[in-house]
Amino acid sequence: MSKAVYYHAGCAICVEGERFVLQFLDTTKVDLEIVHLGTDRNRIEEAEQAGVKSVPALVIDGGVYHINFGASMEDVKQG
Amino acid sequence: MSKAVYYHAGCAICVEGERFVLQFLDTTKVDLEIVHLGTDRNRIEEAEQAGVKSVPALVIDGGVYHINFGASMEDVKQG
Repeated sequence: MSKAVYYHAGCAICVEGERFVLQFLDTTKVDLEIVHLGTDRNRIEEAEQAGVKSVPALVIDGGVYHINFGASMEDVKQG
Repeated sequence: MSKAVYYHAGCAICVEGERFVLQFLDTTKVDLEIVHLGTDRNRIEEAEQAGVKSVPALVIDGGVYHINFGASMEDVKQG
């Protein structure tokens, strides 16, 4: 089972991306965790270390997939 | 069954994104087609009309998900 983390910050594009990961990810292969960096601010450093440059982003097995572009991590940190 | 089209242009980021869609999309829900716009150039217009701004991108049920950023559609058209 792969571990996937979907990092978002509550923006409209993030919500759209969340719909995508919830609907279409193969949950027999992926154990999905959703992290809202706007509220879970202590996860920001972990996201950056995983290579997340903007949200929404999906990290699976060390690979980072930025989906569309909602906000940069700099914006998230200032927000 | 949802219809998904993954548009790419053969770039390194496109190939990485293709691994993602092939590995983790739920194929019980999504019928996936892979389109290489570098070779299938007659599909470029269709991709643009679907809202694809850059490749790689995944179009599912009219929603466009740009995954990372490989090349703009302008680059694809010139390439």
